[in-house]
Amino acid sequence: MKNIRNILNSRFKRNGNFFMEIINILGFKPKDINFYKKAFTHRSMNIKDSKGNAINYERLEFLGDAMLSAVIASHLYLEVPSGDEGYLTKMRSKVVSREHLNELGRELNLIGLVESKIPPGQFGDNIHGNLFEALVGAIFLDRGYKYCEKFIYKRVITPYVDIETLEGKVISYKSLLIEWCQKEKRTFGYNVYEDTGNDEVRHFSVKLSIDNKVVSKARATSKKKAEEKASKRAFFVFQNKMSKML
Amino acid sequence: MKNIRNILNSRFKRNGNFFMEIINILGFKPKDINFYKKAFTHRSMNIKDSKGNAINYERLEFLGDAMLSAVIASHLYLEVPSGDEGYLTKMRSKVVSREHLNELGRELNLIGLVESKIPPGQFGDNIHGNLFEALVGAIFLDRGYKYCEKFIYKRVITPYVDIETLEGKVISYKSLLIEWCQKEKRTFGYNVYEDTGNDEVRHFSVKLSIDNKVVSKARATSKKKAEEKASKRAFFVFQNKMSKML
Repeated sequence: MKNIRNILNSRFKRNGNFFMEIINILGFKPKDINFYKKAFTHRSMNIKDSKGNAINYERLEFLGDAMLSAVIASHLYLEVPSGDEGYLTKMRSKVVSREHLNELGRELNLIGLVESKIPPGQFGDNIHGNLFEALVGAIFLDRGYKYCEKFIYKRVITPYVDIETLEGKVISYKSLLIEWCQKEKRTFGYNVYEDTGNDEVRHFSVKLSIDNKVVSKARATSKKKAEEKASKRAFFVFQNKMSKML
Repeated sequence: MKNIRNILNSRFKRNGNFFMEIINILGFKPKDINFYKKAFTHRSMNIKDSKGNAINYERLEFLGDAMLSAVIASHLYLEVPSGDEGYLTKMRSKVVSREHLNELGRELNLIGLVESKIPPGQFGDNIHGNLFEALVGAIFLDRGYKYCEKFIYKRVITPYVDIETLEGKVISYKSLLIEWCQKEKRTFGYNVYEDTGNDEVRHFSVKLSIDNKVVSKARATSKKKAEEKASKRAFFVFQNKMSKML
């Protein structure tokens, strides 16, 4: 074990703020940072332990996926007492869809923490979701189920798991937001500007203000997407008030 | 909620020892017996809460299945450090196969606790596994993940999850046991007798002795099956010693 620690430590040394970045993502302090180092080690690094077992995040994906499924299952069970097994299964599969997991990983910019010999541009889209699952697996090993649950509530359930949305009742958050503002006689404005930064693809940022106060920000590859994302975030800020309109 | 409690209580009253039987199965005391009552209420009872939501074990199956998958995943992750994602997924699906879950439910005779308007003989085979899943779901709601894990270790992992078996390396426990006894110069004997009891189908019981001491018992619908089952149980009694032969 000491040996693996040394290998991992030397690799992550140049990434001096790895520990701080992990705390930032988790919202709590890891007990053993090595689980997280493993969660961000790509197979291309070709690291093995003394018994020849590969050290990378792939096995952690399996574990994280199982924990994610369990936490989402228990949330949906309690949240929707009227939903039968088929309904609960369908709703869960929407939350843990490949697409959604990729979005979660991308939002946290997990790819920025990966140690790999492959240039980031060559990773497929699924790496975002895979890293997210691996991170959940690492949290389980480091701190157990309760912290896993805490993290999934913070990063998945609270911001994204909304029954109306999952059921497809909300088509556009932007139109929902506009409708709500008009009804409540509030002013609103989307301030969009190009913000490509270091990305290869063109990006846009948007600030959404309600009553002249910025309530949410978002960034995406089109103006429309960025506006929708900001609206969705604002929706969760005003959730109780706005969801009465559904 | 009080209303539901009353409904469930009156139903389970005639089953006065329900609480004791549950303790016996769990190996610990439930905090709220109502979760378990729900886990043994068949949809044919047609019970609804004040909001019209059906009260039966079907939703609990969904929850229990998720918890079972999570606990087995974490066990396999830790137990087989050399297994990749594909291997872990395959091994887990063997443990949580419909067939295996039915066996687990049958062994605990969970069907004996069910409240139903359908005669037990008319239930399909899957009811055993479904009740087992529902029971795990009830444990999660009653006592949380840790107790769920504890129960699954006691009832599933310790007695049944053996990597060599899952990998199909052990073909027959009886031949393994005989080989081991011969090597260790121990005497053994299978004492088989018909033991149909109240069952409609013919049953056999067997007592397996090693060095003239009964080490395990089993009961099944054929002599061969009963012997194999008793050998499997003996295998786990002598696990450390016998597994060296694999």
